Amino acid sequence: MEQKLQELKTRLLEINDLNGAVALLNWDQSTYMPPGGAAARGRQMATLSRLAHEKFITPEVGNLLDSLQTYSENLPYDSDDASLIRVTRRSYEKSTKVPPALLSAFYEHAAASYQVWTEARPNNDFAAVQPYLEKTLDLSRQIANCYPGYDHIADPLIDMSDEGMKAESVRAVFANLREQLVPLAQAITSQTPADNSCLHEAYPPDEQLAFGRAVIKDYGFDFHRGRQDMTHHPFMTKFALGDVRITTRVKETDLNEALFSTLHEAGHAMYELGINMNLDGTPLAEGTSSGVHESQSRLWENLVGRSRGFWKYYYPKLQQTFPTQLGGVEMDTFYRAINRVERSLIRTDADEVTYNLHVMIRFDLELALLEGTLAIKDLPEAWHARYQSDLGLQAPSDVNGVLQDVHWYGGMIGGAFQGYTLGNIMSAAFFDKAVEAHPQIPTDIEQGKFETLHGWLRENIYQHGSKFTANELIERVTGGPLTIDPYITYLRTKFGDLYDLS
Amino acid sequence: MEQKLQELKTRLLEINDLNGAVALLNWDQSTYMPPGGAAARGRQMATLSRLAHEKFITPEVGNLLDSLQTYSENLPYDSDDASLIRVTRRSYEKSTKVPPALLSAFYEHAAASYQVWTEARPNNDFAAVQPYLEKTLDLSRQIANCYPGYDHIADPLIDMSDEGMKAESVRAVFANLREQLVPLAQAITSQTPADNSCLHEAYPPDEQLAFGRAVIKDYGFDFHRGRQDMTHHPFMTKFALGDVRITTRVKETDLNEALFSTLHEAGHAMYELGINMNLDGTPLAEGTSSGVHESQSRLWENLVGRSRGFWKYYYPKLQQTFPTQLGGVEMDTFYRAINRVERSLIRTDADEVTYNLHVMIRFDLELALLEGTLAIKDLPEAWHARYQSDLGLQAPSDVNGVLQDVHWYGGMIGGAFQGYTLGNIMSAAFFDKAVEAHPQIPTDIEQGKFETLHGWLRENIYQHGSKFTANELIERVTGGPLTIDPYITYLRTKFGDLYDLS
Repeated sequence: MEQKLQELKTRLLEINDLNGAVALLNWDQSTYMPPGGAAARGRQMATLSRLAHEKFITPEVGNLLDSLQTYSENLPYDSDDASLIRVTRRSYEKSTKVPPALLSAFYEHAAASYQVWTEARPNNDFAAVQPYLEKTLDLSRQIANCYPGYDHIADPLIDMSDEGMKAESVRAVFANLREQLVPLAQAITSQTPADNSCLHEAYPPDEQLAFGRAVIKDYGFDFHRGRQDMTHHPFMTKFALGDVRITTRVKETDLNEALFSTLHEAGHAMYELGINMNLDGTPLAEGTSSGVHESQSRLWENLVGRSRGFWKYYYPKLQQTFPTQLGGVEMDTFYRAINRVERSLIRTDADEVTYNLHVMIRFDLELALLEGTLAIKDLPEAWHARYQSDLGLQAPSDVNGVLQDVHWYGGMIGGAFQGYTLGNIMSAAFFDKAVEAHPQIPTDIEQGKFETLHGWLRENIYQHGSKFTANELIERVTGGPLTIDPYITYLRTKFGDLYDLS
Repeated sequence: MEQKLQELKTRLLEINDLNGAVALLNWDQSTYMPPGGAAARGRQMATLSRLAHEKFITPEVGNLLDSLQTYSENLPYDSDDASLIRVTRRSYEKSTKVPPALLSAFYEHAAASYQVWTEARPNNDFAAVQPYLEKTLDLSRQIANCYPGYDHIADPLIDMSDEGMKAESVRAVFANLREQLVPLAQAITSQTPADNSCLHEAYPPDEQLAFGRAVIKDYGFDFHRGRQDMTHHPFMTKFALGDVRITTRVKETDLNEALFSTLHEAGHAMYELGINMNLDGTPLAEGTSSGVHESQSRLWENLVGRSRGFWKYYYPKLQQTFPTQLGGVEMDTFYRAINRVERSLIRTDADEVTYNLHVMIRFDLELALLEGTLAIKDLPEAWHARYQSDLGLQAPSDVNGVLQDVHWYGGMIGGAFQGYTLGNIMSAAFFDKAVEAHPQIPTDIEQGKFETLHGWLRENIYQHGSKFTANELIERVTGGPLTIDPYITYLRTKFGDLYDLS
């Protein structure tokens, strides 16, 4: 058995190395690649991804997994080896169900669709992307149908990024959440929005970046095993557990941009950096689902980074960094500015209260498209109608409507959005548990100390990588299934303090 | 046949993509990788290199080449397809002769040896590397012996980087060259060396780098298809013909460092960037030998970049960039400083006159080691003896002796050095031919114009990639075999003007 396990690990390590190279090719494309490199780069990434996929779906891997099945069942469920075999088997079964030809057709189409979108978006040209979206929807359905026996056609697609989650259960959680959020957003946005002009002075980019880096260093982001570079769209990527990188962008007249994207991506990175080093090079060395991943980026960005306690410590430092811009601005004014709530059209710019309304609109539209109750040609109007009913806003064009997010244009329709809101919900559930275990955490944060919180997260969440599904992890950590209560309490408390909510 | 050719190209493209990824992994390791990434990075590069090698040496590739043999013989020798088949076949035959186990053993040993050297060098500890070098010599001999029928045991190793060159012919050329160089160096170094203190003022790094970049932009280095980053050891690398990068390092108190390494690496890069785009993704899309490659780096670094004409145009600009440091320094003083000749211990710091003496010492020692007439344990003394006889210098230790160059410690003994001097010799032969075709080139250079020279090099050398071996190319370009005359004439003329050589 030892020998078979070793052979499996050797094969998985080779696949891991190929995927690490793909991640580097992608990081470089977004950071330093000269324009002339674009054509070959797309092909190189496609070649290496294909090789990695081919090496994974071979019958040899299946046979090894078969021979190891009984062995693994006799090991403790959460042991490294049992988890490796269990998670690899699930992934193998999923990967072998989609015929390679369909997968190629999908990737090829996604790349073409993305290209068309990059031109259609600035031109407000939904007509240009419509046939591509129609084909994307068709291919997404075909992929879903490779997994017969689902309750809802979106289930297999949701399962790809949030394993174990289903349309029905997510829908129930979201309905519950919307019921609470809509009146909360209403009560706040009927008041005069906070003055956030202090965030829009001229802030020299280098100082902005240095400040963000100093904060995440305090968080515990390990620059020995990571770095930060500049890109157009911030992201986190990993080449090995010893090399986890984040990117950001900076806008001279918007202090939010670099700082909060840095805290956000650092949260993702600290999750990966906290995975047990024994798992490096295996499929377990990865955050377990898009929702759990997002829970960590949002926890460090919002629950910590936009809290009053955090700024008690950091605001004087920020004032020292930018004395002419902030020297005369009260801490309370600044705190209200970074937590300004307003109904808006763009998801990525949205505040904590309205953000999930944006996500849920997209989730519902995805389901309707997959179900066939909504046609692609009617999508722009359906989008506008939902923004009208949920946020009371009418977008002037599709640029700020259905053309705004990349997800459907470079990937599947289905499974793309639920993780954002699941992550927000989980962030509060996890944070509450951490504070329950270590009541000094809020006081620590007021002193710029994060090791107790970071240590608890490492111990309870990060170290496991993807040994446990999101649902298993939530059960282990909170003692029950996912509930929105801690999140709603968090929002009500925080924004009740900021706004008159009677 | 079309179909078989297409299948060959598809296989070669996949290998090309793997090698491109290896090059990026390597570039990143030297530029941006955080220290924590090192362990996995070495493994990732090894995995992808192995996959590329395995995919190349399969019998399928051999069979395709066999079936295409007759077809290719009926095509014009220099056509893309005939060249592709011919060059791929030569490379295939070479690659399949070394058993994979020997190759793995060699790479594994080279990596270990390199590690030991990085520590042994600062400690002047030849004893630490001696057993590693002994094994390296043994493995190098084993590899050479995979190619029976050679005239000299070094021939197969020389052939790996300078295809078609042999120990005997290189030895003859070098003997000829040494005969001319030793008295020339003697005559110059018996005079007072030029005052180069003007190069050692404080030069702000950013301005140094900007100046170098401006010059190579004038040369025709295409920043749309390339970029420059910082590393400890400057190098050129390529991920595709549309993405060719160089690196440099900068020293505040040495104006030589960044500027001339930039011109040097830009020469390598312009060679690659000048290859016909039709060859991209094939084994032909690469400079043809280490000697020809070096001829281009040295041509742009020395024959152009250290010439009086070049500085007629650029020196006023350099003075404008550094007015306090150079405002009061005459152009002639500066020109003498950058062309200062002196007997020195370190190859990489050597001037144009003495540089080849360093190379030839190493070449001769390599041959003696491979022949068995010199033992590794006697290498340090043999090194010192040759520096004494050829350069009249005694190194205080092995740090500035046999431990100085990485080549033998991270690679083979044999074939590592001859390309440097072959390149110098070729640089003058090629440059002469360019000026013969376009007599205005020297005047162009005095005006910062390089397109005629660059165009001639592209047309006659660059575009062909590795369609022709070095010897074939020299024959095509100069109408005869390699001769040292143009190079000797160049050195005599240039340094005759600078020094009193009667």
